[in-house]
Amino acid sequence: MLYALTEGYGNPSSRHAKGFEAEKSLVLARERVAARIGCTPEEIVFTSGGTEANNLAIFGAVQALARRGRRIVTTAIEHPSVEQPMRELERQGFEVVFLPVREDGSVREEDLFQAINKETILVSMMAVNNEIGSIQPMGIVRRAIRRAGAPALFHCDCVQGFGKLETSPSLFGIDLMTVSAHKIHGPKGAGALYIRRGVRIKARTLGGGQERGLRSGTEAMPALIGFGAACAALPDWKDGFAHALRLRDYLRERLEEMPGVVLNSPQDALPYIVNFSLPGLRSEPVLNLLSEMGVYVSSGSACAKGHKSPVLTALGLPDKRIDSALRVSFSHFTTVEELELLLEGLRRAQQLLRKN
Amino acid sequence: MLYALTEGYGNPSSRHAKGFEAEKSLVLARERVAARIGCTPEEIVFTSGGTEANNLAIFGAVQALARRGRRIVTTAIEHPSVEQPMRELERQGFEVVFLPVREDGSVREEDLFQAINKETILVSMMAVNNEIGSIQPMGIVRRAIRRAGAPALFHCDCVQGFGKLETSPSLFGIDLMTVSAHKIHGPKGAGALYIRRGVRIKARTLGGGQERGLRSGTEAMPALIGFGAACAALPDWKDGFAHALRLRDYLRERLEEMPGVVLNSPQDALPYIVNFSLPGLRSEPVLNLLSEMGVYVSSGSACAKGHKSPVLTALGLPDKRIDSALRVSFSHFTTVEELELLLEGLRRAQQLLRKN
Repeated sequence: MLYALTEGYGNPSSRHAKGFEAEKSLVLARERVAARIGCTPEEIVFTSGGTEANNLAIFGAVQALARRGRRIVTTAIEHPSVEQPMRELERQGFEVVFLPVREDGSVREEDLFQAINKETILVSMMAVNNEIGSIQPMGIVRRAIRRAGAPALFHCDCVQGFGKLETSPSLFGIDLMTVSAHKIHGPKGAGALYIRRGVRIKARTLGGGQERGLRSGTEAMPALIGFGAACAALPDWKDGFAHALRLRDYLRERLEEMPGVVLNSPQDALPYIVNFSLPGLRSEPVLNLLSEMGVYVSSGSACAKGHKSPVLTALGLPDKRIDSALRVSFSHFTTVEELELLLEGLRRAQQLLRKN
Repeated sequence: MLYALTEGYGNPSSRHAKGFEAEKSLVLARERVAARIGCTPEEIVFTSGGTEANNLAIFGAVQALARRGRRIVTTAIEHPSVEQPMRELERQGFEVVFLPVREDGSVREEDLFQAINKETILVSMMAVNNEIGSIQPMGIVRRAIRRAGAPALFHCDCVQGFGKLETSPSLFGIDLMTVSAHKIHGPKGAGALYIRRGVRIKARTLGGGQERGLRSGTEAMPALIGFGAACAALPDWKDGFAHALRLRDYLRERLEEMPGVVLNSPQDALPYIVNFSLPGLRSEPVLNLLSEMGVYVSSGSACAKGHKSPVLTALGLPDKRIDSALRVSFSHFTTVEELELLLEGLRRAQQLLRKN
C-alpha cells in the first residue's frame, strides 16, 4: 500500500510502465481475494466496500430480472445496506418478504421454502449476523429456489462471515456474495462482490468501464492492494475459528459467573461475536468506561449510531435488555489478556454504575 | 494516512475513543476539502472518486426532479462517467441534448441558451475537458437556466479544474460539483460531490446513513484523510496556474519547432494539459518509447483504454490526427527539465519510428 501511495501511483488503465505496474498489482490483489473466496479472479468486482457491493448486488439483480417476477425474499435482521435497498424496492412496487427469526437469530427453514415462490427473483440472506453472530442456514436457499422453480438469484452478504467460516459460494450455490476488507484487518474503502460466472446483473456506476463495465471508476489502488494483502495474511478459517472458540468459551464462562449478565448471542453463533446485556446498566456509560481503559466494544451496530438495534428488536428482546446490550468482536489477534481487561472493566462498571 | 492505516483504525460511527478519534479526522478532512472548494463542510458528500460523484449527481438529481421535466442538457465531450449515465437516462426515456463543441472544444453560448428550456431538469457541463484542457463558459449556465425559467440543477464535473483555476461553485451558480483526490496528488479511491445547501437529490447507495444519508458505507478513512491533506497541501490556484502557463508556453514553442507537430489543445486551454499530434506516428509506439525513458504521457483518455478518443472525434479532427495524439499533463511539481526529457523522447521517436 505504501508503494502505491508514493512511487507506485500509476493508473491501471494507463498504457505506460507506471500503468502496467499498477495493473499487475491489481491483478495480484484480485487473485488473492478470489483465492480466499474460492472463486476465479474473473468472478470478482471490486467496490468501495460492503455497502456498495450489497447495493450493487440487490439493485443490479432486481433490475436484471424485474421482468421475471416481483417477489424478493430476505430476513428481518439484515445489515442496513441490505435492508435499506429492500425498503426502496418496496417503494418501487416490489413485494419484499422479510423473514422473521427465532430467538437464536436464525430463520426457519420451512419459512424459506414457503416464502420462495415462482415469482421470486432475488433471495438475499446474510451468512452471519453482524450484531449477534447467528449463522443462517445457507445450504437451504439454493434448494428452496430450485424446488420453487424460481428465476431467483441468491445473494449472500458475507461481510461478517468472510474468512471466519466456510463460505465457499459454489458449496452453497451462491450467485452473488459481498465481502469487505476492513472486517479482516484490511483498510476501510475496499470491498468486493463475487458474481458467479454466467450471472448477469445491471451495473450501477457507469463510466470508463472498469471492472468489466460493472463498476466504473479509477480503481482505489492502495485500498485494493491492502484488501489483497489482508486476504493473503488471513489464517485458514478453521484455525481462526478454533482460536475464537476458545476465547468465546472463556468469555462466556466468565460472563455467566457475573450477576445479572444475559447472553444475547446464541450458543451456536459465530464465535467471533459475543453479544450480551447487563440489565440495569445502560450501554453508553459502560462503553465509555471501557473506552477509557482502551477496550473498544460496541453497543448496537456502529453502522446505525444512536438508533435502537433493529436486530435485537427483531429477536423480540425486551427494551431493558436491548438498552444494556454490548457487542464484543474478536479477531485472530485477540488474546485472553485482552478479555481479562474487558472483564475487569465490566466488573468495575457494575460497581460504579449500578448505584445510579 | 499512515496512522489511519495502523493504530488509527477506528470507525467514525463507533461510540468509543477510537471512533471519536476517527470522527475528528473525518471532520478535518471534510473541512479541508470544503475550504479548497469554497463551501461549507455540510455541503460535501464524500465518495469513492469522481465517477461515483458524477453518477450520484446525475441520477440523484434526475430522480429528484423527474416529475418536473424530461430534458437534460450536456455536452458532446463529457467524461465517460457523465456520458454513460446520460446514455442510460436516454434509454429510460429522458431527452438528452449533447451540445456540440467548436474546434477549440468549447460549447457555443447561444447553443446553451437555446437548449435549456422550461422542461430542463439538469444541465451537466464539465469545467475543463480532460483530454484537451478546453475551458467551458461556466458563467453562462446559471443565466441560461434562469432565463428559461427551468427547474434545472446545474452539475459541473470539476475533476480536471479543481485546484487549477477559479471554480467557486457560488461564483458560477453551481448546484452540484464533482471533485477527485487523485487529480491533485491525493490517493485513488476518494472524491466528493459538492451539494449546494438546500439542493435535494436522491441517494443511490443506501445503508447505515453515513454522509447525511446521501452515501452510506463505512468511510474510506485513509483515502479521505489523504484527500484532505492533498487539498491542504495544494498551492493557491493562481500560483499553480502561472507555473503551468510557463511550462505550457515553453512546451508549445518547442513543439511548434518540431516538423509535423499539430496542437490539439486550444490556445486558451487550461495550461496543465497539452494535447498534440505527431501525424504519421501512431501514439502507441511513441508512448512506449517515452515510457522506457520514464516519461509517462497518455494517448486518449486513460479511462477508456483502447478506444478511439470520443473527445477528439467530437472536435471533428481527422483520424490520422486522432491516432497520433498524445496528452501531456502537468502538475505544480512538473519542471522544465522533465519537459526537456519529453522533447528528447519525441525527437527520438520521430527519428526511430518515422521510417516505418
